[in-house]
Amino acid sequence: MAAVTYELLKVCKQSGARLGRVHTPHGVIETPAFMPVGTQATVKTMSPEELKQMDAHIILSNTYHLFLRPGHDLVKRAGGLHKFMNWDRPILTDSGGFQVFSLSDIRKIREEGVEFRSHLNGDKLFISPEKAMEIQNALGSDIMMAFDECAPYPAEYDYVKQSLERTSRWAERCLQSHARPHDQGLFAIVQGGMYADLRKQSAADLTSLDFPGYAIGGLSVGEPKHLMYEVLETTVPLLPGGKPRYLMGVGSPDALVEGSIRGIDMFDCVLPTRIARNGTCMTSEGRLVIRNAKHMEDFGPLDPNCSCYTCTNYSRAYIRHLIKADETFGIRLTTYHNLHFLLELMRGVRQAIREDRLLDFRDEFFDKYGMEANGKGF
Amino acid sequence: MAAVTYELLKVCKQSGARLGRVHTPHGVIETPAFMPVGTQATVKTMSPEELKQMDAHIILSNTYHLFLRPGHDLVKRAGGLHKFMNWDRPILTDSGGFQVFSLSDIRKIREEGVEFRSHLNGDKLFISPEKAMEIQNALGSDIMMAFDECAPYPAEYDYVKQSLERTSRWAERCLQSHARPHDQGLFAIVQGGMYADLRKQSAADLTSLDFPGYAIGGLSVGEPKHLMYEVLETTVPLLPGGKPRYLMGVGSPDALVEGSIRGIDMFDCVLPTRIARNGTCMTSEGRLVIRNAKHMEDFGPLDPNCSCYTCTNYSRAYIRHLIKADETFGIRLTTYHNLHFLLELMRGVRQAIREDRLLDFRDEFFDKYGMEANGKGF
Repeated sequence: MAAVTYELLKVCKQSGARLGRVHTPHGVIETPAFMPVGTQATVKTMSPEELKQMDAHIILSNTYHLFLRPGHDLVKRAGGLHKFMNWDRPILTDSGGFQVFSLSDIRKIREEGVEFRSHLNGDKLFISPEKAMEIQNALGSDIMMAFDECAPYPAEYDYVKQSLERTSRWAERCLQSHARPHDQGLFAIVQGGMYADLRKQSAADLTSLDFPGYAIGGLSVGEPKHLMYEVLETTVPLLPGGKPRYLMGVGSPDALVEGSIRGIDMFDCVLPTRIARNGTCMTSEGRLVIRNAKHMEDFGPLDPNCSCYTCTNYSRAYIRHLIKADETFGIRLTTYHNLHFLLELMRGVRQAIREDRLLDFRDEFFDKYGMEANGKGF
Repeated sequence: MAAVTYELLKVCKQSGARLGRVHTPHGVIETPAFMPVGTQATVKTMSPEELKQMDAHIILSNTYHLFLRPGHDLVKRAGGLHKFMNWDRPILTDSGGFQVFSLSDIRKIREEGVEFRSHLNGDKLFISPEKAMEIQNALGSDIMMAFDECAPYPAEYDYVKQSLERTSRWAERCLQSHARPHDQGLFAIVQGGMYADLRKQSAADLTSLDFPGYAIGGLSVGEPKHLMYEVLETTVPLLPGGKPRYLMGVGSPDALVEGSIRGIDMFDCVLPTRIARNGTCMTSEGRLVIRNAKHMEDFGPLDPNCSCYTCTNYSRAYIRHLIKADETFGIRLTTYHNLHFLLELMRGVRQAIREDRLLDFRDEFFDKYGMEANGKGF
């Protein structure tokens, strides 16, 4: 029995979106799902109890960061990442690839792996596909990601082709060196930039190997949204129907709905937690910047249509005061609200699939949210 | 009926300490009590639910800070401080005096009041006894403090004498301008520095007026602890037995026990929350600095004898990781623990009074805590 399996419950007759369940060693994820990001073994400012209260089914943590600090061996000796951070629901760890390319100062990409310098202290470090597996096996996440190169945007065709081919060879090495296939599911990452034929080549390479799930990487890296949706439309049909499909690094409300419509099951993004720390909130009426003077004496909630802890108990005026006074509790409140907003949005998406009306749901949502479909995001 | 009343339950036969209850419009405070400090309408990093979970009976908030930001008029329009910050148990507000003298850059003390510049933006501001009452009446705290001058240590006899006499005149003006005596209890503050006869003069001045409670100010300002205890021993007997006695700005574990022994009912201090933010914890085995390398792979709790949320669920290794990685959740965990530690200590003090053994309790506590009585504190 594979550690991670997908159960298809229903396809939306109106949109083609999938309602399903991902089964993992630490429980079930209802899909389509948004995964809050807990980079350093904590979803910034939140407790595990709060994440459960908002009914997060799974969180994501970052291999690169945990490798650097506190180190995967320490986490392993602590009993694994779940026990270390007191979270007993599913965890997905990324491969470290994205951060190696985006955060580290100097890097050398070789067939063997990537040499880079820690963004914390300049230490020279090396991650190979085998090392990425060793780290994630030590962390004990339910879902591991294969080590990949995420090509930048824009990038030349030839570079993207070489890069995806190396990513495919690395994926095979990951599969071979994965030491705990019965405890942890390993997902491969389809690359290929914005080139349809390269996405096809990457998907063919990776689906020829038996991964329990597939991610689409290299999107939301600066390209216009219509391009991202085009890539999804050409790539998703190339992935096996019986396995989960994960769109990496995407978490704007519009893209969660549009991605679901295009057959995506899982999403993650730092957006809701990152903007919360600056006092920017996602609401049913669109983006709200709590620092704005107009909220100074507004004693209503962040979002009049929200039932979360923050909106039930606190006013815009209070939250604005806390954020302006650099009080941590303010970003606790905005973080809680933003995560709840996206999880509630995904509950709405799942319900709309059940009712075969996800396209209508999208139009209603965008109408309230004040955005054009496929257009301006967060 | 006065807004705030004191009920004496028992005097410890061994120590003379008092077990009691302070009744306020928002509920009862079991005394001796420690009050967590929520300077800017929030106990830094904590939610009201967490403060209730650790069974804080009352919190303190700072008049000076709320006057500057967000402004007492705004808090009043929000429905008062309790509603603004979502805390329905008692609140004590200080008078602003201490901060005017310690935080503001430039100040001119006149009989009328104090002119000073905001530490936030340099604005020229003025607080008089009447203004301090206006602000605290707007905030709607259960217990208000009279506007006082806290003399520095050391200070010349003549200066301290003039200062306490002005504080007495200010206290009378506070009493006269207090607009809500049936909703809010106003406490006076005995000053007089380290001079026994000046303490006596201050206590005589203030007890000749009918305040529902009395504070002892001007201690824990740099003087050695034995001096503080001497002042308590001469001052407490001068205060009326039927009213609560509040020792301002004192919160080290040893001083809470020693103060209780000397007849104090209420304490407040930023110590537990402030040191928590730097990763320093109060434990039954003494002070613990979580950043120290020796805790790196320690998978036990902060305090093996503690039953708090933090100690039940998280290891020293995890908390150290969070603090070193600048993760807010780390200071949530240390703050929770430190506040729980002091509230639990006060539960122990109250139980020891019930059992007429507070002196034994002190010796046992200091023995475990690794301090000499009256000696090294936190």
